[in-house]
Amino acid sequence: MNSSHDQIQKESLRKRLHDIIFEADTPAGKVFDIVLLVLIGLSVFAVLIDSVMPIHEKYGDELFLAEWMFTILFSIEYILRIYTVSKPRKYIFSFYGLIDLLAILPTYLSLLFTGTQYLLVIRMLRLLRVFRVLKLARFVGASEMLGIAMKNSRHKIIVFLEVVVTMVVIMGSLMYLIEGPDNGFTSIPISIYWAIVTLTTVGYGDIAPQTFIGQTLASVIMIIGYAIIAVPTGIISVEMAKVSQPVNTQVCRNCGHKRHDDDAVFCKICGEPL
Amino acid sequence: MNSSHDQIQKESLRKRLHDIIFEADTPAGKVFDIVLLVLIGLSVFAVLIDSVMPIHEKYGDELFLAEWMFTILFSIEYILRIYTVSKPRKYIFSFYGLIDLLAILPTYLSLLFTGTQYLLVIRMLRLLRVFRVLKLARFVGASEMLGIAMKNSRHKIIVFLEVVVTMVVIMGSLMYLIEGPDNGFTSIPISIYWAIVTLTTVGYGDIAPQTFIGQTLASVIMIIGYAIIAVPTGIISVEMAKVSQPVNTQVCRNCGHKRHDDDAVFCKICGEPL
Amino acid sequence: MNSSHDQIQKESLRKRLHDIIFEADTPAGKVFDIVLLVLIGLSVFAVLIDSVMPIHEKYGDELFLAEWMFTILFSIEYILRIYTVSKPRKYIFSFYGLIDLLAILPTYLSLLFTGTQYLLVIRMLRLLRVFRVLKLARFVGASEMLGIAMKNSRHKIIVFLEVVVTMVVIMGSLMYLIEGPDNGFTSIPISIYWAIVTLTTVGYGDIAPQTFIGQTLASVIMIIGYAIIAVPTGIISVEMAKVSQPVNTQVCRNCGHKRHDDDAVFCKICGEPL
Amino acid sequence: MNSSHDQIQKESLRKRLHDIIFEADTPAGKVFDIVLLVLIGLSVFAVLIDSVMPIHEKYGDELFLAEWMFTILFSIEYILRIYTVSKPRKYIFSFYGLIDLLAILPTYLSLLFTGTQYLLVIRMLRLLRVFRVLKLARFVGASEMLGIAMKNSRHKIIVFLEVVVTMVVIMGSLMYLIEGPDNGFTSIPISIYWAIVTLTTVGYGDIAPQTFIGQTLASVIMIIGYAIIAVPTGIISVEMAKVSQPVNTQVCRNCGHKRHDDDAVFCKICGEPL
Repeated sequence: MNSSHDQIQKESLRKRLHDIIFEADTPAGKVFDIVLLVLIGLSVFAVLIDSVMPIHEKYGDELFLAEWMFTILFSIEYILRIYTVSKPRKYIFSFYGLIDLLAILPTYLSLLFTGTQYLLVIRMLRLLRVFRVLKLARFVGASEMLGIAMKNSRHKIIVFLEVVVTMVVIMGSLMYLIEGPDNGFTSIPISIYWAIVTLTTVGYGDIAPQTFIGQTLASVIMIIGYAIIAVPTGIISVEMAKVSQPVNTQVCRNCGHKRHDDDAVFCKICGEPL
Repeated sequence: MNSSHDQIQKESLRKRLHDIIFEADTPAGKVFDIVLLVLIGLSVFAVLIDSVMPIHEKYGDELFLAEWMFTILFSIEYILRIYTVSKPRKYIFSFYGLIDLLAILPTYLSLLFTGTQYLLVIRMLRLLRVFRVLKLARFVGASEMLGIAMKNSRHKIIVFLEVVVTMVVIMGSLMYLIEGPDNGFTSIPISIYWAIVTLTTVGYGDIAPQTFIGQTLASVIMIIGYAIIAVPTGIISVEMAKVSQPVNTQVCRNCGHKRHDDDAVFCKICGEPL
Repeated sequence: MNSSHDQIQKESLRKRLHDIIFEADTPAGKVFDIVLLVLIGLSVFAVLIDSVMPIHEKYGDELFLAEWMFTILFSIEYILRIYTVSKPRKYIFSFYGLIDLLAILPTYLSLLFTGTQYLLVIRMLRLLRVFRVLKLARFVGASEMLGIAMKNSRHKIIVFLEVVVTMVVIMGSLMYLIEGPDNGFTSIPISIYWAIVTLTTVGYGDIAPQTFIGQTLASVIMIIGYAIIAVPTGIISVEMAKVSQPVNTQVCRNCGHKRHDDDAVFCKICGEPL
Repeated sequence: MNSSHDQIQKESLRKRLHDIIFEADTPAGKVFDIVLLVLIGLSVFAVLIDSVMPIHEKYGDELFLAEWMFTILFSIEYILRIYTVSKPRKYIFSFYGLIDLLAILPTYLSLLFTGTQYLLVIRMLRLLRVFRVLKLARFVGASEMLGIAMKNSRHKIIVFLEVVVTMVVIMGSLMYLIEGPDNGFTSIPISIYWAIVTLTTVGYGDIAPQTFIGQTLASVIMIIGYAIIAVPTGIISVEMAKVSQPVNTQVCRNCGHKRHDDDAVFCKICGEPL
């Protein structure tokens, strides 16, 4: 009985830990989420500044220490997640589970191999957890709406991207013929890269047409790129307008139809007064 | 009778080949389309990487072989298309028919003349077939809607492009006067090219104003370019919103209400059956 | 009587010439407009290519001849316009009247002074006549709609431009303090110019921040510039949507009210059935 | 009684001065606002051109004098504002109060310390007063509408910026691994800066990818940046459309129709008086 009591206590602890780590409903859960976010932010910041040579030379040792500290903390978190979750296997192979593991592996691997330190950059991916953690009521609606609008417009966006890709391949190939290797268009892939840089109006200027015909074609690409940005914008605006339209929550008592217009007086399906 | 039977069999084979090659309704037709798309993709990829010098030097022979293989396969496809289609002349002189021919000609011409290899780039145009082949139900609606929106807004887009062209010609000429050949604005066409690069916010930086007045005028062009991008965007957004709104022309016999949803059975205002 | 008859004939000729030159309703008027447009296009093209050094050296004499030919033709047109219009003074001092004069003056002035040839660039302004001439039914609706949308949104656009100007002045001044003359930010006006180049996402790269703080502030400006382009786009989209909404032409028989919604059954002002 | 009379006169003067300085309803108030705006503009212009070396060398003394003149005028204005306002403490520590003080301090500090002249740039912030002063009826509506649309869309904009920041951090880190210090990507912060320059389509070109994989990833970033600009645009367009649509909450007592125009007197569906 004692052992059963222990078991129950253990279960209850596991349950409570699970709620703290995975949920954000309780005060403790909220504190955990905020602390985790701050730690992720700090660890990302440490990786960031450690890549700056003068800082690495001056504070390399402190940052090395910080790196191990973050790794140990994240390892504890990782083990607790596996321990408290009901289906560990599912968590481990989930998107966030893999990122959580990849974020701590490089430090341990650096004990065995040299040069794995570069892999620490993977830790940046933990920033994505912001989207899981920041499930505050205020932002859920906003991000859900954005998500739905994006999802609804995906077919049109794919058609648009197809047109863009076909266009840059053909335009890039043409520019390779027109300008040639002497003017910086050393190969078709490079020319396609230039066409993307131009069509998206980025315009680095590392490669730029030199001949008159090349500059004329480039002008055409620029004006096309300038004008067709209107297409994805139009697509997403329309979808957003649809998603953001207030939905009437009236339900017909007779047939149960749910989507009524705001000015409806009778059910449009069965004729019952609303 | 035997010969007539043969004739019928031949006709039936031709009919079946036609359905496989030109339509995508049958499983065989779908497989043909996918295989064709993959082949086009591979042949484009081969032309692409063959233009990269180090790859050409190392794998030139293999790519030469691949080029001939693709050419022979596309030639067979071209002959089959002519054989199976009911009006061969119409296909041959159609847009896709010409591209199909132009995609195989350069390789054969290279046997007679040198230097025609460059023309192989024309094969890139076969990528356009993606739009014919990918007529999957999911994307047809999306691309049709985009097409209608573009078509409906063409008058406004033409007026907009007229304004843009007039603006860059005048602004470019002015900059030629202000900056002059010493600051890179060597001629009016080059200055117009610079005005396009600036107005479309591409901004290569190969030519940039040096004088104070030139930089002031450039600032004006940039702010105009930044602001008027709103015009095509607004045009296309509005047209897309229109296209995506189904218009129902039913009118209620009792109260005369006009805007009914497509699924309405009863008038939502007075309850009368529609 | 003879002289009176002459007078009438003269008037009738003047009237007919006026219709040909100023209107586009008659076949002759349409031909005149098209010929004029082609001549303007050619004269602009001549000025354009004459500014290219190699072309000027080779075809300078021919282009000089062409210039005089265009000048004489435009002079005849100008005199005819003054002759046929009922209020010559009004035409001469109108916007298009001044441009028409300025387009021919430089060639005559070049007889008296040297160096006035540069002024020939003013002829580019005649391109604006495209907008007067191309009053084809198809485009009038489109350009009017664009014009109304622009006019309706002008207050909001002015507020937006005020915000943008204030932002670039403050940001530019800050960058002057942060980066200083050593990094290319040689004065506050130059820094403001850089801020405009950056905010409008043109990004020449002739001036670019070198310090860490400068690059951080530049990143902020870029993201702001990237995001607030949404503002003019939103403004103009909304105005265009309003302008393009079909207007119901029903008029109430009782009170004469004109703007009824499409689903209106009774007049909303006096209650009369429509 | 005399002193009381004086007191009243003083109060009345203070009241009138307050109306002139803080309000724009009276003719005198309007004149004051316009004069103030012109003075702010001139003082900003003086700071601006004083930073241009050749102008500083030639007109340095005159600009020094102008600076003191503006400082004294703005000091008088500042003292008058404190004197006439009913709650001086509230004004002093308000946003505009602090800017008004900061705009005059640097000149006085330059008497005590050298090098504080640079701080004069703070005077640029007084440009913000334009937004307080220009409260003309025409623009209040426009700027309020813009403000409401911005406020309503802030949650969605924050989610969007979160996605953008996460994306540039991850993309920048990846590019640091791919390109490395030899190709200009000297540290992760610099690589993130490059990712921002690229995603926002600014594209300075001071740093540009050199390797094939780097250019491929850069192309992906560009196309993403080119496409997702549609997101803030869509968000703000929708919010603006909402704000510009007046909502009327009247309901018809007879038929229950809900959407009536603001000027409706009778129900447009059933003719019942509203």
